[in-house]
Amino acid sequence: QWMMLDWKTKRPDMLADLDPFGFGRIVEDGFVFRQNFSIRSYEIGVDRTASVETLMNHLQETALNHVKNAGLLGDGFGSTPEMCKRNLFWVVTKMQVLVDRYPTWGDVVQVDTWVAASGKNSMRRDWLIRDCKTGEILTRASSNWVMMNKVTRRLSKIPDEVRTEIEQYFVDTPPVIDDDTIKLPKLDENTADHVRNGLTPKWSDLDVNQHVNNVKYVGWILESAPQPVVENYELASITLEYRRECMKDSVLQSLTKTLTSLLGGGGMADSGGVDCQHLLRLEGGGGEIVKGRTKWRPKFANRFKNINHFPTTESG
Amino acid sequence: QWMMLDWKTKRPDMLADLDPFGFGRIVEDGFVFRQNFSIRSYEIGVDRTASVETLMNHLQETALNHVKNAGLLGDGFGSTPEMCKRNLFWVVTKMQVLVDRYPTWGDVVQVDTWVAASGKNSMRRDWLIRDCKTGEILTRASSNWVMMNKVTRRLSKIPDEVRTEIEQYFVDTPPVIDDDTIKLPKLDENTADHVRNGLTPKWSDLDVNQHVNNVKYVGWILESAPQPVVENYELASITLEYRRECMKDSVLQSLTKTLTSLLGGGGMADSGGVDCQHLLRLEGGGGEIVKGRTKWRPKFANRFKNINHFPTTESG
Repeated sequence: QWMMLDWKTKRPDMLADLDPFGFGRIVEDGFVFRQNFSIRSYEIGVDRTASVETLMNHLQETALNHVKNAGLLGDGFGSTPEMCKRNLFWVVTKMQVLVDRYPTWGDVVQVDTWVAASGKNSMRRDWLIRDCKTGEILTRASSNWVMMNKVTRRLSKIPDEVRTEIEQYFVDTPPVIDDDTIKLPKLDENTADHVRNGLTPKWSDLDVNQHVNNVKYVGWILESAPQPVVENYELASITLEYRRECMKDSVLQSLTKTLTSLLGGGGMADSGGVDCQHLLRLEGGGGEIVKGRTKWRPKFANRFKNINHFPTTESG
Repeated sequence: QWMMLDWKTKRPDMLADLDPFGFGRIVEDGFVFRQNFSIRSYEIGVDRTASVETLMNHLQETALNHVKNAGLLGDGFGSTPEMCKRNLFWVVTKMQVLVDRYPTWGDVVQVDTWVAASGKNSMRRDWLIRDCKTGEILTRASSNWVMMNKVTRRLSKIPDEVRTEIEQYFVDTPPVIDDDTIKLPKLDENTADHVRNGLTPKWSDLDVNQHVNNVKYVGWILESAPQPVVENYELASITLEYRRECMKDSVLQSLTKTLTSLLGGGGMADSGGVDCQHLLRLEGGGGEIVKGRTKWRPKFANRFKNINHFPTTESG
């Protein structure tokens, strides 16, 4: 009898903390969604660390589970009930990911995510990835989202009814990454150092909307990064600006230009790092799909870095 | 004091059952390794169900964790200590996966895996994937493995010292799938119905050995499957025979031939299914990388099928 009672009283809390099936849960007075991921053998690359695509997959999963846990999952893939009524869905316009340290196979990471207002017609979503054991912050990410109409494929204002649904979850904290607003000169075949042609989506690259999933673009962007950079440096940060959707039949061209301390002030070039500018576009000089910037640091350079513990978000 | 005692006594068992971090654990008197996976949003395709690649990733992860949990992880990637001493690593020669039902986003699956003897110089590894909630068997898989020398790249006999390490884990049960030993006529550009050229590994497709991971081949094989089949049928089973390794600079050609009830007797063709034969080879008529066969059933055909509950393995 004692045991039963004890079990019954303790179990819900323990489950909440342990998150046995990895579904995640709402924490911080309802404003933050938290989910743990153990890094799998198939999520690591040649360096035995998680790839940036893996981290971004975890960001996507927590964003969707946040919406689901808030009871706002209208269509099963991120749209709220009021958005579904109006044929609206979320489109990411910008994504910034800053990686201090990559986890490795068997590590467990804790991903926190929350949303915030961003101007009149968009929403910000931030993430913090921590090492579950030490609490060390491994990755920070910030993104911007707008609404698109499924039928007209045009951007939409946020309807009042949708704003009412979502703004109760908005926190009042600054972004975890300062917005990178650097404007770079236009990148094309003449100014690019490296071009990779003929990139085509595989059937398995498509998501439930039959569009190429946002994360897949990263692999194609990195395809045109110079091989000496990919082999000798690790990706410290990536900024992506999404311009248009890519469909199954698109043939893509990936362009990269290596910038020599052009961005300046970031300290990356000074410390032996490399900055790159990227463009993913339809082949044959077609429309821009994604514009990107990456910063790279020499491999192992970050092992002795003084980790800056970022304060946890405060609920607004 | 009661609570502390209770906690201490109970906790290890509870953790073992709940598997809070998804690391898995040994069950069935030490012969079976069991790990749960919740299906993520980024692991599903256009049909909202897990792809066969996702399932195969889970198979790979449990195989490695089985070796790790048995205390036999010499180099961190599947080789035992005695194998490491001799520069040996495991190479998969054949993989058969039979899917009764695909799990969807948010489902939790339980993967059981175990090993068995297979002739004098190879090892068999089997898997069962169950729906965690219902116990229903979703997928059965069986594979065959041999040893290769890292330096000479030649196949090796299993040294006695290695056999001593591993044979204590061998179970004495028949394979979960009958070995598919069908011999098909040679597939080449003249006999193939569909050819897809110019497939190249991405940097992120490589594993820690700088080889293309086994699972990646599946995506390329399915690239040459006829689009009407991919869109209207679901993959019921796949058999892969691995012939040689694929490196970063390889350019691959994927060939598919649709077989009309050629395999006969399987009931698949009779029930409106489609059988295909596949070949993945180096472009320009080069060496064979993977030979494959797939069986497809009309989408949703399996919803009302009487599920055959496969008996759980008995420890030998």
